[in-house]
Amino acid sequence: MDISLILGMGSAFVCLIIAFLMEGGNPIKLIGPSAFVIIVGGTFGALAVSFGLAKVLKMPGGFIKAMKPTPHNGVKLVDLFIYYSEKARKEGLLSLEGDTEADASFDPLIKKGLSLVIDGTDANAIKEIFEIEIMEFEEREKGTVMVFEQAGGFCPTMGIVGTVLGLISVLSHLNEPERLGESIAAAFIATLYGIGFANIIFLPTANKLKGQLKEHVAEKNLILTGLISLQAGDNPRILKDKLMGFLEEHEREKVRSVD
Amino acid sequence: MDISLILGMGSAFVCLIIAFLMEGGNPIKLIGPSAFVIIVGGTFGALAVSFGLAKVLKMPGGFIKAMKPTPHNGVKLVDLFIYYSEKARKEGLLSLEGDTEADASFDPLIKKGLSLVIDGTDANAIKEIFEIEIMEFEEREKGTVMVFEQAGGFCPTMGIVGTVLGLISVLSHLNEPERLGESIAAAFIATLYGIGFANIIFLPTANKLKGQLKEHVAEKNLILTGLISLQAGDNPRILKDKLMGFLEEHEREKVRSVD
Amino acid sequence: MDISLILGMGSAFVCLIIAFLMEGGNPIKLIGPSAFVIIVGGTFGALAVSFGLAKVLKMPGGFIKAMKPTPHNGVKLVDLFIYYSEKARKEGLLSLEGDTEADASFDPLIKKGLSLVIDGTDANAIKEIFEIEIMEFEEREKGTVMVFEQAGGFCPTMGIVGTVLGLISVLSHLNEPERLGESIAAAFIATLYGIGFANIIFLPTANKLKGQLKEHVAEKNLILTGLISLQAGDNPRILKDKLMGFLEEHEREKVRSVD
Amino acid sequence: MDISLILGMGSAFVCLIIAFLMEGGNPIKLIGPSAFVIIVGGTFGALAVSFGLAKVLKMPGGFIKAMKPTPHNGVKLVDLFIYYSEKARKEGLLSLEGDTEADASFDPLIKKGLSLVIDGTDANAIKEIFEIEIMEFEEREKGTVMVFEQAGGFCPTMGIVGTVLGLISVLSHLNEPERLGESIAAAFIATLYGIGFANIIFLPTANKLKGQLKEHVAEKNLILTGLISLQAGDNPRILKDKLMGFLEEHEREKVRSVD
Amino acid sequence: MDISLILGMGSAFVCLIIAFLMEGGNPIKLIGPSAFVIIVGGTFGALAVSFGLAKVLKMPGGFIKAMKPTPHNGVKLVDLFIYYSEKARKEGLLSLEGDTEADASFDPLIKKGLSLVIDGTDANAIKEIFEIEIMEFEEREKGTVMVFEQAGGFCPTMGIVGTVLGLISVLSHLNEPERLGESIAAAFIATLYGIGFANIIFLPTANKLKGQLKEHVAEKNLILTGLISLQAGDNPRILKDKLMGFLEEHEREKVRSVD
Repeated sequence: MDISLILGMGSAFVCLIIAFLMEGGNPIKLIGPSAFVIIVGGTFGALAVSFGLAKVLKMPGGFIKAMKPTPHNGVKLVDLFIYYSEKARKEGLLSLEGDTEADASFDPLIKKGLSLVIDGTDANAIKEIFEIEIMEFEEREKGTVMVFEQAGGFCPTMGIVGTVLGLISVLSHLNEPERLGESIAAAFIATLYGIGFANIIFLPTANKLKGQLKEHVAEKNLILTGLISLQAGDNPRILKDKLMGFLEEHEREKVRSVD
Repeated sequence: MDISLILGMGSAFVCLIIAFLMEGGNPIKLIGPSAFVIIVGGTFGALAVSFGLAKVLKMPGGFIKAMKPTPHNGVKLVDLFIYYSEKARKEGLLSLEGDTEADASFDPLIKKGLSLVIDGTDANAIKEIFEIEIMEFEEREKGTVMVFEQAGGFCPTMGIVGTVLGLISVLSHLNEPERLGESIAAAFIATLYGIGFANIIFLPTANKLKGQLKEHVAEKNLILTGLISLQAGDNPRILKDKLMGFLEEHEREKVRSVD
Repeated sequence: MDISLILGMGSAFVCLIIAFLMEGGNPIKLIGPSAFVIIVGGTFGALAVSFGLAKVLKMPGGFIKAMKPTPHNGVKLVDLFIYYSEKARKEGLLSLEGDTEADASFDPLIKKGLSLVIDGTDANAIKEIFEIEIMEFEEREKGTVMVFEQAGGFCPTMGIVGTVLGLISVLSHLNEPERLGESIAAAFIATLYGIGFANIIFLPTANKLKGQLKEHVAEKNLILTGLISLQAGDNPRILKDKLMGFLEEHEREKVRSVD
Repeated sequence: MDISLILGMGSAFVCLIIAFLMEGGNPIKLIGPSAFVIIVGGTFGALAVSFGLAKVLKMPGGFIKAMKPTPHNGVKLVDLFIYYSEKARKEGLLSLEGDTEADASFDPLIKKGLSLVIDGTDANAIKEIFEIEIMEFEEREKGTVMVFEQAGGFCPTMGIVGTVLGLISVLSHLNEPERLGESIAAAFIATLYGIGFANIIFLPTANKLKGQLKEHVAEKNLILTGLISLQAGDNPRILKDKLMGFLEEHEREKVRSVD
Repeated sequence: MDISLILGMGSAFVCLIIAFLMEGGNPIKLIGPSAFVIIVGGTFGALAVSFGLAKVLKMPGGFIKAMKPTPHNGVKLVDLFIYYSEKARKEGLLSLEGDTEADASFDPLIKKGLSLVIDGTDANAIKEIFEIEIMEFEEREKGTVMVFEQAGGFCPTMGIVGTVLGLISVLSHLNEPERLGESIAAAFIATLYGIGFANIIFLPTANKLKGQLKEHVAEKNLILTGLISLQAGDNPRILKDKLMGFLEEHEREKVRSVD
């Protein structure tokens, strides 16, 4: 598990509390049940209309996914394809048939693609199959990211709604000036929750999921490039040259050399 | 009918009222006829200028459409095309002629496309016909989404207009301080309505319609891919491989296997 | 003439006045000559710098254009091309020569394109000529839309400038508290004008012009598709299938059937 | 020189002053040296970090460029290419060699392109050379536009910084209520300068430069289209048809007719 | 080292302090430890969630990179490729083999590409290898830019959070009016820090890094264009014509002439 998410949210919340204490505030004052009801209820409602109940109920799953470390399989994948390429060169493409079973820990696309290559499927058909696969995968996953992004968009406006509601309530009781300060303070809690939840929870989580998605799409594109190169019978050095572009500078020296 | 829309809007409004009650506010105070006149009249006017009266009067139709569940015909469509592909393999493309009548419940594009394939229309012509069809369909439907999006954009600014109008009216009566609080509160109602209507009604509905549109376009692309694959005489396994990309992971195992 | 524009702007302004009266305000108070000078002068100045004087002086022409109903010639155009296609099939492309004069009410592109087709111009050359034509037309017309969009952007900021100017003036006369309310109210008039003009006049007009432009571009694309199909000698049914994609569902049954 | 820029900025500033006088303000009060220091210093600093000192120091050059009228050489260029095309038809491409010297007032691209055409350079090579040229030209010029756009973005935030600084200073001297109004007014000057400079100077200038750039790019694309058509040996009427798309409706009748 | 970054940030901060002194403020008052804790802690937390701890800890490295001057190797690269082209013309492509070692100071892509060209690799393969390389390089580097951009986005919202927290704390102590001014002033410090850090540090640095990235990508595209031209055996003048497009006007005359 990637501790960044827990650590990041935690440190942000802790810093807010510490700063409030430094200013002589009483953290108990930051508890606003009515603000909480508005922010959570309003945001939940707007999201349920936007994406349907089912997708909103999957948000905890999104959080758990965002806590997983972003995978970096690039080097392993390049090594794998160099191995495939060398084996295909020496023993023919058909020799890879026994290998297809071996890679259960990898993206199932490899297995699917390898069997297409071995069956002698046309390069354009493979390309088309993979391009649909990758594009639709990206489209679907962006849907999940968008739920979090929109949550980050609705939260602060619900906060403003809450504060306006609070001020309306305050303004009707102007004849009790001694309670005025506390009431206005309570009204601001909604703004605090709205901006806070959006900027500490929802938007950063959306960023994290977007980063993971980018990595996954790059990995799938690496696999597609490798398969097409394999099918075209490129020599292993050319295949390696093509795939190296997907790796960061410091990863490149970790790739095993080609005979 | 998809209850998410009703449930979402309902829960958002109920939460606002509950929160207001928790703060000791009187919900009667939230009724602002003049604010309502500004928000509804101003937004209606801006939309009528923007899109013409006819499109604005179709907005209730848009709401009803947004209440329908987003269709998920992917698995059924893939099954259908596998069936077509297998039948065409065994009995020839012409054997599909009797089948064209059978699928009234599906997108009429299938029928149109199938008869083009059976007539031996050139693959490029089919592609062109469908690409125009899909692109223009998307363009037209985006028009409906935009009416709701713009409504969500004009609402809050009309709310600010209303609040400024209210404050101007208040500031001219500063000599009656006892009514001051109530009047300022009334001025804020316009902001409340503007932000509330936009974020609970218009923008979420626009999101919902956008999601439905995306699904419809993906479905039409699935149909186009299937037809082109059928016309090219791909074997059923390749056709299935191509179409599987359009399905979510958990839908894929529901597709029937190919002989 | 399309009454939507007049009706929309009128109803928005009337609603604002009604609401102000409902709040017991005196509409005379909404007249702010200094606010008017700032908004109009400032916005005019910013636009003159941005687009040059000539384009700003053409804005009334833009309003008049926005008042015209958006054309819907789709069905007529499809009928026309089916007729051309059938005639060309029976009597040869050259027989269309006499027809070119007949369509003065249509987009002059048809005449230009038809004579290119009759002269036997290469399909790629026709495509290139039309693509330049359509792209540059869109680019130029977008320029007009942008003047209105930017007017809608500068207006509110000039409103804020006006309000800040007003407040600065007020704050220098704090020693006359009895005039304070009125002065602050007057300062807010600038915000009102800025947001109001932008959201009731400029942005909706920009939306309307954008919608008209989209329609015109779609029409020109329909014409291009029809001409290329004519030139390729497609049979009339295929030509009709290609062009139908440009029509809305309810328009399609109005197209005459092909022999 | 195009007077629009001077006239636009001038009229905007004059209107602001007139409006302020109408409200009974004293224009001397609008002079805020500390606000000026923050806006100019802060914006300069942010721009220097963003783009490097050299580019910031070139901003006056950008203003001077924005004052020049946007060129409209379309008609002249189409005439020129028709002339080239007719001459090439009659006397061969080589006969254009003497002509290359004649067009010093035009874009040097014409001379470069013409000599490539005369040398018999491959059409794809010419296209590639010009596409790189045009794309990189656009990219570089966009860089200049961006400096102004970013200036328009940093200015208002520096204005807010200035106002907050001013308010902090005011709030520490609450014990001198008689100076309060003046001090708050002074604090608002920074907001005024920030929004004013951005919306009257920087953003409109960026718009102007963007419009000039669009025109230049269209002109270069016209030249490329003309050269490729010349190289392909299109007859002058086809060449004219291709180039006409770049002209506005009212310019087209000014183009000389083709023999 | 490019002094623009240090100079820009420095002058912005100094101007703020000078302006504050001009208004009679005491710079000591601008020190707000609690505001600092919120802005830094909150922004750090949001970034750690968004991008993971590792990338946030690399931000100082990003600053150091932004301080380096943007490279302008265009002229040197064009000269180099003209030299390669002339040598290849006279002595054959293989004669470049000895040259590959010589260019250690340049982008390693040249060496990689040159050896591909010498090995007679297919032009399409070279193009594919380089396009992956350039696209993925751009994608990865954009990731770094985004960390700074998002920091510039989170900072001001954390500032608002801090100010709201401060006001809540103030409003609970309304019974001590003598401390009111100072407390509100202290609350505004958070807004000041948030907007200031974003607009003086994070966003300008992001701009700088984006500009450097654009330059690097243009350079890599120049190299790719040069290599493909070399491989195609273009004559040195054509190669020079192609590459000149990447240079600014004033750089072009510095390129050495072709024999």
